[in-house]
Amino acid sequence: MTLKDYTLATTVRVRYSETDQMGVVYYANYLDWFEVARTEFCRLSGIPYSKWEEDGLILPVVESHCRYKHPARYDDQIQIWCRITDVKVYSVTFEYRLLRASDYKLIAEGWTKHGCTNCEGRLYKNEHPFYNWVLSGEDSGKKEDQGK
Amino acid sequence: MTLKDYTLATTVRVRYSETDQMGVVYYANYLDWFEVARTEFCRLSGIPYSKWEEDGLILPVVESHCRYKHPARYDDQIQIWCRITDVKVYSVTFEYRLLRASDYKLIAEGWTKHGCTNCEGRLYKNEHPFYNWVLSGEDSGKKEDQGK
Amino acid sequence: MTLKDYTLATTVRVRYSETDQMGVVYYANYLDWFEVARTEFCRLSGIPYSKWEEDGLILPVVESHCRYKHPARYDDQIQIWCRITDVKVYSVTFEYRLLRASDYKLIAEGWTKHGCTNCEGRLYKNEHPFYNWVLSGEDSGKKEDQGK
Amino acid sequence: MTLKDYTLATTVRVRYSETDQMGVVYYANYLDWFEVARTEFCRLSGIPYSKWEEDGLILPVVESHCRYKHPARYDDQIQIWCRITDVKVYSVTFEYRLLRASDYKLIAEGWTKHGCTNCEGRLYKNEHPFYNWVLSGEDSGKKEDQGK
Repeated sequence: MTLKDYTLATTVRVRYSETDQMGVVYYANYLDWFEVARTEFCRLSGIPYSKWEEDGLILPVVESHCRYKHPARYDDQIQIWCRITDVKVYSVTFEYRLLRASDYKLIAEGWTKHGCTNCEGRLYKNEHPFYNWVLSGEDSGKKEDQGK
Repeated sequence: MTLKDYTLATTVRVRYSETDQMGVVYYANYLDWFEVARTEFCRLSGIPYSKWEEDGLILPVVESHCRYKHPARYDDQIQIWCRITDVKVYSVTFEYRLLRASDYKLIAEGWTKHGCTNCEGRLYKNEHPFYNWVLSGEDSGKKEDQGK
Repeated sequence: MTLKDYTLATTVRVRYSETDQMGVVYYANYLDWFEVARTEFCRLSGIPYSKWEEDGLILPVVESHCRYKHPARYDDQIQIWCRITDVKVYSVTFEYRLLRASDYKLIAEGWTKHGCTNCEGRLYKNEHPFYNWVLSGEDSGKKEDQGK
Repeated sequence: MTLKDYTLATTVRVRYSETDQMGVVYYANYLDWFEVARTEFCRLSGIPYSKWEEDGLILPVVESHCRYKHPARYDDQIQIWCRITDVKVYSVTFEYRLLRASDYKLIAEGWTKHGCTNCEGRLYKNEHPFYNWVLSGEDSGKKEDQGK
Protein backbone atom coordinates (compact mmCIF):
# COMPACT_ATOMS: atom_id res chain seq x y z
CA MET A 1 0.00 0.00 0.00
CA THR A 2 1.20 3.53 -0.72
CA LEU A 3 -0.23 6.82 0.46
CA LYS A 4 -1.61 7.31 -3.00
CA ASP A 5 -4.38 4.78 -2.44
CA TYR A 6 -7.84 5.83 -1.37
CA THR A 7 -9.04 4.90 2.11
CA LEU A 8 -12.70 4.60 3.03
CA ALA A 9 -12.74 7.48 5.49
CA THR A 10 -16.41 7.49 6.47
CA THR A 11 -19.98 6.90 5.33
CA VAL A 12 -22.55 9.68 5.69
CA ARG A 13 -26.29 9.38 5.36
CA VAL A 14 -27.90 12.27 3.48
CA ARG A 15 -29.79 14.56 5.84
CA TYR A 16 -33.05 16.24 4.92
CA SER A 17 -31.40 19.60 5.56
CA GLU A 18 -28.84 18.79 2.88
CA THR A 19 -31.40 18.52 0.08
CA ASP A 20 -32.70 21.45 -1.95
CA GLN A 21 -35.88 22.03 -3.92
CA MET A 22 -34.45 20.08 -6.87
CA GLY A 23 -34.84 17.05 -4.58
CA VAL A 24 -31.10 16.36 -4.47
CA VAL A 25 -28.18 17.30 -2.24
CA TYR A 26 -27.26 20.98 -2.57
CA TYR A 27 -23.86 21.31 -4.22
CA ALA A 28 -22.09 23.18 -1.41
CA ASN A 29 -22.82 20.39 1.06
CA TYR A 30 -20.35 18.07 -0.68
CA LEU A 31 -17.61 20.33 0.69
CA ASP A 32 -18.95 19.76 4.21
CA TRP A 33 -18.63 16.04 3.56
CA PHE A 34 -15.08 16.45 2.27
CA GLU A 35 -14.25 17.96 5.64
CA VAL A 36 -15.96 15.13 7.51
CA ALA A 37 -13.83 12.71 5.49
CA ARG A 38 -10.63 14.66 6.23
CA THR A 39 -11.42 14.48 9.93
CA GLU A 40 -12.00 10.73 9.85
CA PHE A 41 -9.06 10.10 7.53
CA CYS A 42 -6.73 11.83 9.99
CA ARG A 43 -8.23 9.92 12.91
CA LEU A 44 -7.71 6.63 11.04
CA SER A 45 -4.14 7.70 10.35
CA GLY A 46 -3.49 8.08 14.04
CA ILE A 47 -3.85 11.76 14.94
CA PRO A 48 -7.25 13.42 15.18
CA TYR A 49 -7.47 16.84 13.59
CA SER A 50 -8.73 18.36 16.85
CA LYS A 51 -5.38 17.34 18.40
CA TRP A 52 -3.49 19.27 15.75
CA GLU A 53 -5.46 22.42 16.36
CA GLU A 54 -4.51 22.11 20.03
CA ASP A 55 -0.87 21.80 18.93
CA GLY A 56 -1.21 24.97 16.88
CA LEU A 57 -1.40 23.50 13.39
CA ILE A 58 -4.30 24.83 11.34
CA LEU A 59 -5.13 23.68 7.82
CA PRO A 60 -7.10 26.45 6.12
CA VAL A 61 -8.44 25.52 2.70
CA VAL A 62 -6.78 27.51 -0.06
CA GLU A 63 -8.47 25.84 -3.02
CA SER A 64 -11.38 23.46 -3.59
CA HIS A 65 -12.69 21.60 -6.59
CA CYS A 66 -15.66 19.29 -7.07
CA ARG A 67 -17.06 17.44 -10.06
CA TYR A 68 -20.69 16.39 -9.60
CA LYS A 69 -21.38 13.15 -11.43
CA HIS A 70 -24.71 11.88 -10.16
CA PRO A 71 -27.15 13.39 -7.66
CA ALA A 72 -27.24 12.12 -4.08
CA ARG A 73 -30.69 11.98 -2.50
CA TYR A 74 -32.23 12.09 0.96
CA ASP A 75 -31.40 9.03 3.07
CA ASP A 76 -28.79 7.72 0.60
CA GLN A 77 -25.69 6.35 2.26
CA ILE A 78 -22.58 7.87 0.72
CA GLN A 79 -19.12 6.42 1.15
CA ILE A 80 -16.33 8.99 1.17
CA TRP A 81 -12.96 7.69 0.07
CA CYS A 82 -10.00 9.92 0.77
CA ARG A 83 -6.29 10.10 0.04
CA ILE A 84 -3.40 12.57 0.27
CA THR A 85 -1.88 13.24 -3.10
CA ASP A 86 0.49 16.12 -2.73
CA VAL A 87 2.47 17.12 0.33
CA LYS A 88 4.75 20.11 0.42
CA VAL A 89 6.40 21.84 3.35
CA TYR A 90 3.62 24.41 3.56
CA SER A 91 0.66 22.68 1.89
CA VAL A 92 -1.16 19.39 1.62
CA THR A 93 -3.78 18.20 -0.89
CA PHE A 94 -6.58 15.74 -0.18
CA GLU A 95 -8.60 13.97 -2.87
CA TYR A 96 -12.08 12.54 -2.40
CA ARG A 97 -14.32 10.07 -4.16
CA LEU A 98 -17.96 9.80 -3.12
CA LEU A 99 -19.74 6.53 -3.88
CA ARG A 100 -23.37 5.63 -3.23
CA ALA A 101 -23.08 2.69 -0.84
CA SER A 102 -25.95 0.70 -2.34
CA ASP A 103 -24.44 0.28 -5.80
CA TYR A 104 -21.03 2.01 -5.70
CA LYS A 105 -22.19 4.57 -8.24
CA LEU A 106 -19.80 7.53 -8.39
CA ILE A 107 -21.62 10.55 -6.98
CA ALA A 108 -18.83 13.11 -7.02
CA GLU A 109 -15.09 13.54 -6.88
CA GLY A 110 -12.97 16.46 -5.83
CA TRP A 111 -9.98 17.78 -3.99
CA THR A 112 -9.00 20.42 -1.47
CA LYS A 113 -5.62 22.07 -1.04
CA HIS A 114 -4.67 23.32 2.41
CA GLY A 115 -2.06 25.63 3.80
CA CYS A 116 -0.23 24.61 6.98
CA THR A 117 -0.37 27.57 9.33
CA ASN A 118 -0.35 28.39 13.01
CA CYS A 119 -3.29 29.96 14.82
CA GLU A 120 -2.33 33.45 13.68
CA GLY A 121 -2.47 32.36 10.03
CA ARG A 122 1.33 32.39 9.62
CA LEU A 123 3.20 29.48 8.11
CA TYR A 124 3.68 26.53 10.45
CA LYS A 125 7.38 26.19 11.10
CA ASN A 126 7.52 22.71 12.55
CA GLU A 127 7.35 19.64 10.37
CA HIS A 128 3.70 18.85 9.92
CA PRO A 129 2.53 15.28 10.41
CA PHE A 130 1.56 14.72 6.77
CA TYR A 131 5.13 15.35 5.81
CA ASN A 132 6.25 12.54 8.06
CA TRP A 133 3.52 10.27 6.75
CA VAL A 134 4.74 10.71 3.25
CA LEU A 135 8.33 10.08 4.20
CA SER A 136 7.41 6.96 6.14
CA GLY A 137 5.02 5.95 3.36
CA GLU A 138 7.74 6.30 0.78
CA ASP A 139 10.04 4.26 2.94
CA SER A 140 7.53 1.48 3.35
CA GLY A 141 6.75 1.74 -0.35
CA LYS A 142 10.41 1.22 -1.17
CA LYS A 143 10.58 -1.72 1.16
CA GLU A 144 7.55 -3.24 -0.50
CA ASP A 145 9.15 -2.70 -3.87
CA GLN A 146 12.32 -4.33 -2.65
CA GLY A 147 10.35 -7.28 -1.46
CA LYS A 148 8.98 -7.91 -4.91
CA MET B 1 -42.51 54.33 20.81
CA THR B 2 -41.47 51.89 23.50
CA LEU B 3 -38.96 49.06 23.33
CA LYS B 4 -41.88 46.67 23.14
CA ASP B 5 -42.64 47.62 19.53
CA TYR B 6 -41.29 45.59 16.64
CA THR B 7 -38.68 47.17 14.36
CA LEU B 8 -38.11 46.05 10.79
CA ALA B 9 -34.59 44.76 11.32
CA THR B 10 -33.83 43.42 7.85
CA THR B 11 -35.20 41.77 4.73
CA VAL B 12 -33.66 38.53 3.48
CA ARG B 13 -34.19 36.90 0.12
CA VAL B 14 -34.57 33.11 0.29
CA ARG B 15 -31.47 31.36 -1.03
CA TYR B 16 -31.60 28.16 -3.04
CA SER B 17 -29.43 26.53 -0.38
CA GLU B 18 -32.09 27.29 2.22
CA THR B 19 -34.78 25.20 0.50
CA ASP B 20 -35.25 21.47 1.01
CA GLN B 21 -36.82 18.74 -1.11
CA MET B 22 -40.29 19.76 0.08
CA GLY B 23 -39.70 22.91 -2.01
CA VAL B 24 -39.80 25.22 1.00
CA VAL B 25 -37.30 26.73 3.42
CA TYR B 26 -35.85 24.12 5.79
CA TYR B 27 -37.07 24.78 9.32
CA ALA B 28 -33.66 25.24 10.96
CA ASN B 29 -32.80 28.10 8.61
CA TYR B 30 -35.32 30.38 10.28
CA LEU B 31 -32.99 30.42 13.28
CA ASP B 32 -30.18 31.65 11.03
CA TRP B 33 -32.48 34.49 9.99
CA PHE B 34 -33.32 35.28 13.60
CA GLU B 35 -29.61 35.84 14.15
CA VAL B 36 -29.33 38.02 11.03
CA ALA B 37 -32.18 40.11 12.45
CA ARG B 38 -30.52 40.37 15.88
CA THR B 39 -27.34 41.63 14.22
CA GLU B 40 -29.19 44.28 12.23
CA PHE B 41 -31.45 45.22 15.14
CA CYS B 42 -28.40 45.92 17.30
CA ARG B 43 -26.76 47.90 14.51
CA LEU B 44 -29.93 49.98 14.10
CA SER B 45 -29.92 50.53 17.86
CA GLY B 46 -26.48 52.02 17.71
CA ILE B 47 -23.96 49.32 18.63
CA PRO B 48 -23.08 46.51 16.21
CA TYR B 49 -22.90 43.08 17.79
CA SER B 50 -19.36 42.60 16.50
CA LYS B 51 -18.38 45.58 18.66
CA TRP B 52 -19.75 43.87 21.76
CA GLU B 53 -17.81 40.71 21.13
CA GLU B 54 -14.68 42.87 20.96
CA ASP B 55 -15.69 44.36 24.32
CA GLY B 56 -16.02 40.89 25.80
CA LEU B 57 -19.81 40.54 25.86
CA ILE B 58 -21.08 37.31 24.33
CA LEU B 59 -24.75 36.43 23.98
CA PRO B 60 -25.04 32.63 23.75
CA VAL B 61 -28.53 31.38 23.00
CA VAL B 62 -30.00 29.48 25.93
CA GLU B 63 -33.45 28.83 24.48
CA SER B 64 -35.15 29.14 21.09
CA HIS B 65 -38.70 28.78 19.90
CA CYS B 66 -40.29 29.04 16.47
CA ARG B 67 -43.84 28.65 15.20
CA TYR B 68 -44.02 27.98 11.45
CA LYS B 69 -47.18 29.50 9.99
CA HIS B 70 -46.75 29.46 6.22
CA PRO B 71 -43.89 28.15 4.06
CA ALA B 72 -41.31 30.53 2.62
CA ARG B 73 -40.08 29.66 -0.86
CA TYR B 74 -37.01 30.25 -3.00
CA ASP B 75 -36.54 33.90 -4.00
CA ASP B 76 -39.26 35.15 -1.63
CA GLN B 77 -38.33 38.33 0.17
CA ILE B 78 -38.91 37.96 3.91
CA GLN B 79 -39.09 40.88 6.29
CA ILE B 80 -37.81 40.16 9.78
CA TRP B 81 -39.28 42.31 12.52
CA CYS B 82 -37.54 42.21 15.86
CA ARG B 83 -38.00 43.49 19.40
CA ILE B 84 -36.56 42.99 22.86
CA THR B 85 -39.19 41.79 25.30
CA ASP B 86 -37.45 40.78 28.46
CA VAL B 87 -34.21 42.16 29.86
CA LYS B 88 -32.68 40.89 33.05
CA VAL B 89 -29.23 41.46 34.50
CA TYR B 90 -27.93 38.23 33.03
CA SER B 91 -30.30 37.54 30.13
CA VAL B 92 -32.13 39.18 27.26
CA THR B 93 -34.97 37.90 25.07
CA PHE B 94 -35.59 38.82 21.43
CA GLU B 95 -38.84 38.20 19.58
CA TYR B 96 -39.19 37.90 15.82
CA ARG B 97 -41.97 38.09 13.28
CA LEU B 98 -41.28 37.04 9.68
CA LEU B 99 -43.53 38.50 6.99
CA ARG B 100 -43.48 37.79 3.25
CA ALA B 101 -42.71 41.21 1.77
CA SER B 102 -45.04 40.85 -1.23
CA ASP B 103 -48.25 40.51 0.79
CA TYR B 104 -47.25 40.75 4.49
CA LYS B 105 -48.34 37.17 5.08
CA LEU B 106 -47.05 35.88 8.42
CA ILE B 107 -44.45 33.21 7.68
CA ALA B 108 -43.21 32.48 11.17
CA GLU B 109 -42.78 33.93 14.63
CA GLY B 110 -40.42 33.03 17.42
CA TRP B 111 -38.10 34.12 20.17
CA THR B 112 -34.61 33.48 21.48
CA LYS B 113 -33.36 33.92 25.03
CA HIS B 114 -29.69 34.76 25.54
CA GLY B 115 -27.31 34.71 28.44
CA CYS B 116 -24.93 37.64 28.90
CA THR B 117 -21.47 36.20 29.39
CA ASN B 118 -17.82 37.04 28.84
CA CYS B 119 -15.58 35.15 26.44
CA GLU B 120 -14.93 32.39 28.97
CA GLY B 121 -18.64 31.73 29.31
CA ARG B 122 -18.90 33.32 32.75
CA LEU B 123 -21.53 35.89 33.60
CA TYR B 124 -20.83 39.38 32.26
CA LYS B 125 -20.29 41.62 35.26
CA ASN B 126 -20.63 45.03 33.64
CA GLU B 127 -24.00 46.48 32.80
CA HIS B 128 -24.88 45.22 29.34
CA PRO B 129 -26.15 47.69 26.77
CA PHE B 130 -29.66 46.22 26.55
CA TYR B 131 -30.11 47.02 30.20
CA ASN B 132 -29.37 50.67 29.55
CA TRP B 133 -31.66 50.67 26.52
CA VAL B 134 -34.54 49.49 28.61
CA LEU B 135 -33.86 52.05 31.31
CA SER B 136 -33.61 54.85 28.76
CA GLY B 137 -36.62 53.46 26.92
CA GLU B 138 -38.65 53.46 30.13
CA ASP B 139 -37.55 57.01 30.84
CA SER B 140 -38.57 58.22 27.41
CA GLY B 141 -41.80 56.25 27.73
CA LYS B 142 -42.57 58.07 30.98
CA LYS B 143 -41.80 61.42 29.40
CA GLU B 144 -44.12 60.60 26.50
CA ASP B 145 -46.82 59.68 28.97
CA GLN B 146 -46.31 62.92 30.82
CA GLY B 147 -46.62 64.84 27.60
CA LYS B 148 -50.10 63.47 26.98
CA MET C 1 -41.57 -0.30 27.68
CA THR C 2 -44.05 2.25 26.49
CA LEU C 3 -43.84 4.70 23.60
CA LYS C 4 -43.17 7.41 26.16
CA ASP C 5 -39.62 6.22 26.78
CA TYR C 6 -36.66 7.75 25.01
CA THR C 7 -34.83 5.65 22.41
CA LEU C 8 -31.22 6.26 21.41
CA ALA C 9 -31.96 7.21 17.82
CA THR C 10 -28.47 8.02 16.60
CA THR C 11 -25.07 9.44 17.49
CA VAL C 12 -23.63 12.31 15.47
CA ARG C 13 -20.09 13.58 15.51
CA VAL C 14 -19.81 17.39 15.45
CA ARG C 15 -18.63 18.63 12.05
CA TYR C 16 -16.27 21.56 11.63
CA SER C 17 -18.95 23.25 9.51
CA GLU C 18 -21.32 23.10 12.48
CA THR C 19 -19.14 25.26 14.73
CA ASP C 20 -19.18 29.05 14.78
CA GLN C 21 -16.63 31.65 15.83
CA MET C 22 -17.57 31.16 19.49
CA GLY C 23 -15.91 27.75 19.10
CA VAL C 24 -19.13 25.83 19.74
CA VAL C 25 -21.94 24.36 17.65
CA TYR C 26 -24.13 27.08 16.12
CA TYR C 27 -27.56 26.98 17.72
CA ALA C 28 -29.58 26.34 14.56
CA ASN C 29 -27.67 23.14 13.83
CA TYR C 30 -29.31 21.37 16.74
CA LEU C 31 -32.50 21.43 14.71
CA ASP C 32 -30.71 19.65 11.87
CA TRP C 33 -29.74 16.97 14.39
CA PHE C 34 -33.32 16.71 15.64
CA GLU C 35 -34.28 15.82 12.09
CA VAL C 36 -31.49 13.26 11.79
CA ALA C 37 -32.80 11.68 14.98
CA ARG C 38 -36.40 11.65 13.67
CA THR C 39 -35.22 9.88 10.55
CA GLU C 40 -33.35 7.23 12.49
CA PHE C 41 -36.10 6.87 15.10
CA CYS C 42 -38.62 6.12 12.37
CA ARG C 43 -36.25 3.67 10.72
CA LEU C 44 -35.74 1.90 14.04
CA SER C 45 -39.51 1.82 14.46
CA GLY C 46 -39.89 -0.05 11.22
CA ILE C 47 -40.76 2.47 8.50
CA PRO C 48 -38.17 4.85 7.06
CA TYR C 49 -39.37 8.40 6.62
CA SER C 50 -38.41 8.33 2.94
CA LYS C 51 -40.97 5.53 2.52
CA TRP C 52 -43.70 7.73 3.97
CA GLU C 53 -42.93 10.56 1.61
CA GLU C 54 -43.33 8.07 -1.25
CA ASP C 55 -46.71 7.11 0.22
CA GLY C 56 -47.74 10.75 0.27
CA LEU C 57 -47.40 11.50 3.98
CA ILE C 58 -45.41 14.64 4.72
CA LEU C 59 -44.58 15.87 8.23
CA PRO C 60 -43.93 19.63 8.02
CA VAL C 61 -42.69 21.15 11.27
CA VAL C 62 -45.23 23.55 12.75
CA GLU C 63 -43.36 24.38 15.95
CA SER C 64 -39.88 23.85 17.36
CA HIS C 65 -38.30 24.45 20.72
CA CYS C 66 -34.78 23.95 22.02
CA ARG C 67 -33.13 24.58 25.38
CA TYR C 68 -29.34 24.80 25.15
CA LYS C 69 -27.72 23.48 28.34
CA HIS C 70 -24.05 23.02 27.57
CA PRO C 71 -22.06 23.76 24.40
CA ALA C 72 -21.16 20.97 22.00
CA ARG C 73 -17.74 21.27 20.38
CA TYR C 74 -15.98 20.10 17.23
CA ASP C 75 -15.44 16.32 17.11
CA ASP C 76 -17.65 15.67 20.15
CA GLN C 77 -19.88 12.64 19.78
CA ILE C 78 -23.45 13.50 20.62
CA GLN C 79 -26.12 10.92 21.37
CA ILE C 80 -29.62 11.91 20.32
CA TRP C 81 -32.40 10.29 22.27
CA CYS C 82 -35.88 10.61 20.85
CA ARG C 83 -39.47 9.80 21.75
CA ILE C 84 -42.98 10.55 20.57
CA THR C 85 -45.00 12.30 23.23
CA ASP C 86 -48.20 13.49 21.67
CA VAL C 87 -50.06 11.93 18.76
CA LYS C 88 -53.25 13.40 17.38
CA VAL C 89 -55.08 12.63 14.18
CA TYR C 90 -53.41 15.52 12.38
CA SER C 91 -50.23 16.11 14.38
CA VAL C 92 -47.38 14.36 16.12
CA THR C 93 -44.78 15.66 18.59
CA PHE C 94 -41.22 14.38 19.00
CA GLU C 95 -39.00 15.13 21.97
CA TYR C 96 -35.21 15.01 21.95
CA ARG C 97 -32.43 14.82 24.50
CA LEU C 98 -28.84 15.35 23.38
CA LEU C 99 -26.10 13.85 25.53
CA ARG C 100 -22.34 14.09 25.07
CA ALA C 101 -21.30 10.47 24.59
CA SER C 102 -18.08 10.72 26.60
CA ASP C 103 -19.70 11.65 29.91
CA TYR C 104 -23.49 11.73 29.27
CA LYS C 105 -23.59 15.45 29.99
CA LEU C 106 -26.87 16.98 28.84
CA ILE C 107 -26.11 19.24 25.88
CA ALA C 108 -29.62 20.26 24.86
CA GLU C 109 -33.23 19.18 24.91
CA GLY C 110 -36.13 20.16 22.72
CA TRP C 111 -39.21 19.16 20.80
CA THR C 112 -40.79 19.56 17.38
CA LYS C 113 -44.48 19.41 16.52
CA HIS C 114 -45.43 18.24 13.05
CA GLY C 115 -48.54 18.39 10.93
CA CYS C 116 -49.56 15.29 8.96
CA THR C 117 -50.25 16.39 5.41
CA ASN C 118 -50.18 15.10 1.87
CA CYS C 119 -47.83 16.42 -0.81
CA GLU C 120 -50.09 19.37 -1.55
CA GLY C 121 -49.97 20.47 2.09
CA ARG C 122 -53.54 19.34 2.83
CA LEU C 123 -54.39 17.20 5.81
CA TYR C 124 -53.50 13.53 5.42
CA LYS C 125 -56.76 11.60 5.40
CA ASN C 126 -55.47 8.10 6.01
CA GLU C 127 -54.46 6.93 9.43
CA HIS C 128 -50.84 7.85 9.85
CA PRO C 129 -48.42 5.25 11.17
CA PHE C 130 -47.69 7.06 14.45
CA TYR C 131 -51.33 6.76 15.31
CA ASN C 132 -51.15 3.02 14.96
CA TRP C 133 -47.92 2.88 16.92
CA VAL C 134 -49.54 4.58 19.83
CA LEU C 135 -52.59 2.35 19.72
CA SER C 136 -50.45 -0.75 19.55
CA GLY C 137 -48.15 0.71 22.21
CA GLU C 138 -51.10 1.35 24.50
CA ASP C 139 -52.37 -2.16 23.88
CA SER C 140 -49.05 -3.70 24.72
CA GLY C 141 -48.80 -1.35 27.67
CA LYS C 142 -52.14 -2.61 28.95
CA LYS C 143 -51.10 -6.19 28.42
CA GLU C 144 -47.92 -5.58 30.33
CA ASP C 145 -49.94 -4.01 33.10
CA GLN C 146 -52.30 -6.98 33.15
CA GLY C 147 -49.37 -9.31 33.38
CA LYS C 148 -48.19 -7.67 36.57
CA MET D 1 -19.43 46.27 -22.77
CA THR D 2 -19.20 42.60 -23.60
CA LEU D 3 -20.59 39.63 -21.70
CA LYS D 4 -17.06 38.90 -20.56
CA ASP D 5 -17.06 41.78 -18.06
CA TYR D 6 -17.87 41.21 -14.42
CA THR D 7 -21.09 42.69 -13.02
CA LEU D 8 -21.60 43.48 -9.36
CA ALA D 9 -24.35 40.93 -8.77
CA THR D 10 -24.95 41.43 -5.05
CA THR D 11 -23.41 42.26 -1.69
CA VAL D 12 -23.81 39.86 1.21
CA ARG D 13 -23.07 40.51 4.85
CA VAL D 14 -21.37 37.61 6.63
CA ARG D 15 -23.76 35.83 8.99
CA TYR D 16 -22.71 34.44 12.35
CA SER D 17 -23.87 31.02 11.16
CA GLU D 18 -21.39 31.20 8.29
CA THR D 19 -18.33 31.42 10.54
CA ASP D 20 -16.51 28.42 12.01
CA GLN D 21 -14.31 27.98 15.05
CA MET D 22 -11.33 29.38 13.16
CA GLY D 23 -13.21 32.69 13.36
CA VAL D 24 -13.62 32.97 9.58
CA VAL D 25 -16.23 32.00 7.00
CA TYR D 26 -16.39 28.23 6.52
CA TYR D 27 -15.14 27.34 3.05
CA ALA D 28 -18.29 25.64 1.78
CA ASN D 29 -20.35 28.77 2.37
CA TYR D 30 -18.64 30.57 -0.50
CA LEU D 31 -20.52 28.21 -2.82
CA ASP D 32 -23.80 29.33 -1.26
CA TRP D 33 -22.78 32.90 -2.08
CA PHE D 34 -21.91 31.95 -5.65
CA GLU D 35 -25.49 30.78 -6.00
CA VAL D 36 -26.87 33.99 -4.48
CA ALA D 37 -24.82 35.89 -7.05
CA ARG D 38 -26.09 33.71 -9.93
CA THR D 39 -29.65 34.42 -8.84
CA GLU D 40 -29.10 38.17 -8.73
CA PHE D 41 -27.03 38.19 -11.92
CA CYS D 42 -29.88 36.52 -13.81
CA ARG D 43 -32.41 38.92 -12.30
CA LEU D 44 -30.27 41.88 -13.37
CA SER D 45 -30.05 40.35 -16.83
CA GLY D 46 -33.82 40.35 -17.14
CA ILE D 47 -35.06 36.88 -16.25
CA PRO D 48 -35.15 35.65 -12.64
CA TYR D 49 -33.93 32.10 -12.17
CA SER D 50 -37.18 31.13 -10.47
CA LYS D 51 -38.94 31.98 -13.76
CA TRP D 52 -36.71 29.53 -15.63
CA GLU D 53 -37.47 26.71 -13.25
CA GLU D 54 -41.16 27.37 -13.92
CA ASP D 55 -40.40 27.14 -17.66
CA GLY D 56 -38.70 23.80 -17.12
CA LEU D 57 -35.05 24.85 -17.39
CA ILE D 58 -32.88 23.60 -14.54
CA LEU D 59 -29.18 24.41 -14.18
CA PRO D 60 -27.60 21.67 -12.03
CA VAL D 61 -23.98 22.33 -11.10
CA VAL D 62 -21.64 19.85 -12.75
CA GLU D 63 -18.37 21.34 -11.53
CA SER D 64 -17.25 23.93 -8.99
CA HIS D 65 -13.95 25.55 -8.17
CA CYS D 66 -12.93 28.09 -5.57
CA ARG D 67 -9.62 29.70 -4.65
CA TYR D 68 -9.59 31.20 -1.14
CA LYS D 69 -7.34 34.26 -1.02
CA HIS D 70 -8.14 36.03 2.23
CA PRO D 71 -10.54 35.10 5.04
CA ALA D 72 -13.94 36.78 5.30
CA ARG D 73 -15.14 37.49 8.84
CA TYR D 74 -18.42 37.96 10.66
CA ASP D 75 -20.25 41.14 9.68
CA ASP D 76 -17.94 41.85 6.71
CA GLN D 77 -19.75 43.05 3.63
CA ILE D 78 -18.69 41.05 0.60
CA GLN D 79 -19.31 42.15 -2.96
CA ILE D 80 -19.88 39.32 -5.40
CA TRP D 81 -19.00 40.11 -8.99
CA CYS D 82 -20.21 37.65 -11.61
CA ARG D 83 -19.87 36.97 -15.33
CA ILE D 84 -20.67 34.27 -17.84
CA THR D 85 -17.56 33.02 -19.56
CA ASP D 86 -18.48 29.98 -21.52
CA VAL D 87 -21.81 29.16 -23.10
CA LYS D 88 -22.45 25.96 -24.99
CA VAL D 89 -25.69 24.44 -26.15
CA TYR D 90 -25.91 22.22 -23.10
CA SER D 91 -23.79 24.05 -20.54
CA VAL D 92 -22.97 27.46 -19.14
CA THR D 93 -20.11 28.62 -16.90
CA PHE D 94 -20.25 31.44 -14.36
CA GLU D 95 -17.19 33.08 -12.82
CA TYR D 96 -17.16 34.93 -9.50
CA ARG D 97 -14.90 37.40 -7.73
CA LEU D 98 -15.55 38.19 -4.08
CA LEU D 99 -14.26 41.52 -2.77
CA ARG D 100 -14.46 42.88 0.76
CA ALA D 101 -16.53 46.03 0.34
CA SER D 102 -14.55 48.14 2.82
CA ASP D 103 -11.24 47.98 0.94
CA TYR D 104 -11.86 45.89 -2.21
CA LYS D 105 -9.51 43.19 -0.97
CA LEU D 106 -9.91 39.99 -2.99
CA ILE D 107 -11.45 37.39 -0.70
CA ALA D 108 -11.99 34.55 -3.16
CA GLU D 109 -12.54 33.74 -6.80
CA GLY D 110 -14.12 30.74 -8.44
CA TRP D 111 -16.37 29.33 -11.10
CA THR D 112 -19.25 26.92 -11.53
CA LYS D 113 -20.19 24.97 -14.64
CA HIS D 114 -23.84 24.06 -15.12
CA GLY D 115 -25.71 21.65 -17.31
CA CYS D 116 -28.94 22.85 -18.98
CA THR D 117 -31.58 20.24 -18.29
CA ASN D 118 -35.31 19.87 -17.90
CA CYS D 119 -36.99 18.85 -14.65
CA GLU D 120 -36.32 15.17 -15.28
CA GLY D 121 -32.61 15.82 -15.58
CA ARG D 122 -32.58 15.33 -19.38
CA LEU D 123 -30.97 17.82 -21.71
CA TYR D 124 -33.01 20.96 -22.31
CA LYS D 125 -33.99 20.96 -25.96
CA ASN D 126 -35.05 24.58 -26.39
CA GLU D 127 -32.54 27.34 -26.76
CA HIS D 128 -31.63 28.47 -23.28
CA PRO D 129 -31.60 32.18 -22.51
CA PHE D 130 -27.84 32.39 -21.93
CA TYR D 131 -27.33 31.25 -25.49
CA ASN D 132 -29.37 34.16 -26.75
CA TRP D 133 -27.57 36.56 -24.44
CA VAL D 134 -24.25 35.57 -25.89
CA LEU D 135 -25.52 35.87 -29.45
CA SER D 136 -27.01 39.28 -28.77
CA GLY D 137 -23.90 40.23 -26.80
CA GLU D 138 -21.69 39.24 -29.72
CA ASP D 139 -23.92 41.19 -32.08
CA SER D 140 -23.78 44.30 -29.96
CA GLY D 141 -20.07 43.74 -29.57
CA LYS D 142 -19.66 43.67 -33.35
CA LYS D 143 -21.73 46.80 -33.71
CA GLU D 144 -19.61 48.54 -31.14
CA ASP D 145 -16.52 47.48 -33.01
CA GLN D 146 -18.01 48.78 -36.25
CA GLY D 147 -18.75 52.08 -34.59
CA LYS D 148 -15.13 52.57 -33.68
